[in-house]
Amino acid sequence: MLNIVLFEPEIPANTGNIGRTCVATGTRLHLIEPLGFRLNEKAIKRAGMDYWDDLDVTTYINYEDFLEKNPDAKIYMATTKAPYVYSDVKFEEDCYIMFGKESAGIPEEILVQNKENCMRIPMIGDIRSLNLGNSVAIVLYEALRQHQFAHMNTEGHLHRLNWE
Amino acid sequence: MLNIVLFEPEIPANTGNIGRTCVATGTRLHLIEPLGFRLNEKAIKRAGMDYWDDLDVTTYINYEDFLEKNPDAKIYMATTKAPYVYSDVKFEEDCYIMFGKESAGIPEEILVQNKENCMRIPMIGDIRSLNLGNSVAIVLYEALRQHQFAHMNTEGHLHRLNWE
Repeated sequence: MLNIVLFEPEIPANTGNIGRTCVATGTRLHLIEPLGFRLNEKAIKRAGMDYWDDLDVTTYINYEDFLEKNPDAKIYMATTKAPYVYSDVKFEEDCYIMFGKESAGIPEEILVQNKENCMRIPMIGDIRSLNLGNSVAIVLYEALRQHQFAHMNTEGHLHRLNWE
Repeated sequence: MLNIVLFEPEIPANTGNIGRTCVATGTRLHLIEPLGFRLNEKAIKRAGMDYWDDLDVTTYINYEDFLEKNPDAKIYMATTKAPYVYSDVKFEEDCYIMFGKESAGIPEEILVQNKENCMRIPMIGDIRSLNLGNSVAIVLYEALRQHQFAHMNTEGHLHRLNWE
């Protein structure tokens, strides 16, 4: 099972959308406080929809708390500052993929301690980054693709057209 | 240059985010009316940010107008109803990737005329789809990955840390 880690997310609609993506893919979500919102706030409910109750989500009081409670985690870190491209990473099936806050990304003191596991999403210009929810979706689906969507293949036919 | 086509998009924040993704990737955006918002509406400006002015965007009065003005377009269509998975598609460098409106997807009469070019994003449960902006980001970055992010490689170092 893959893991998405959000470091101090600020915008509730983004975390709501990411929760929706996690439910749709069987992915665990880890939230590192402080958050820019309360988890029961209306905006999260609206963005996360009815999905939120189905989400496997854990919150931590800070980064150290997260590390202590996930001692064996193999953590990849998304940052615009990394030389490596996300699609060159070979994602383990139970790895953790971490994203920083919308306004500032992951702090540099954490990045420099994890240089080998940092990666970027290519973009033109590099002035601002993609929307956080989009960044999570792009990297998460690359990890799922590498594992052939193994746990997701059985139910895609439910609403299928008659194709023949 | 890749092309994203939105068929009658309803939610301005989604189109704004998709515009941001298109600017960040050098992708053209095609919008098929009716839209659920006006293009100068505040919500789009907010979601699309200062990027919107840099966007290569064309609007069409309907689907037929789009087809007439893009007569040679190789069009792939994203739908939860397709048997084929998006990552099995070999995307041409100048292809078009089309997404339906948030509430209903692409109309079935269009899908059945384009069965061979329909594809789905795998998800668990299949009760509701992913956020539209996330769906666009996932498929677009798969197409870019297949072409080694060829036109996007030169500027990723601008804000890089000192990695050694």
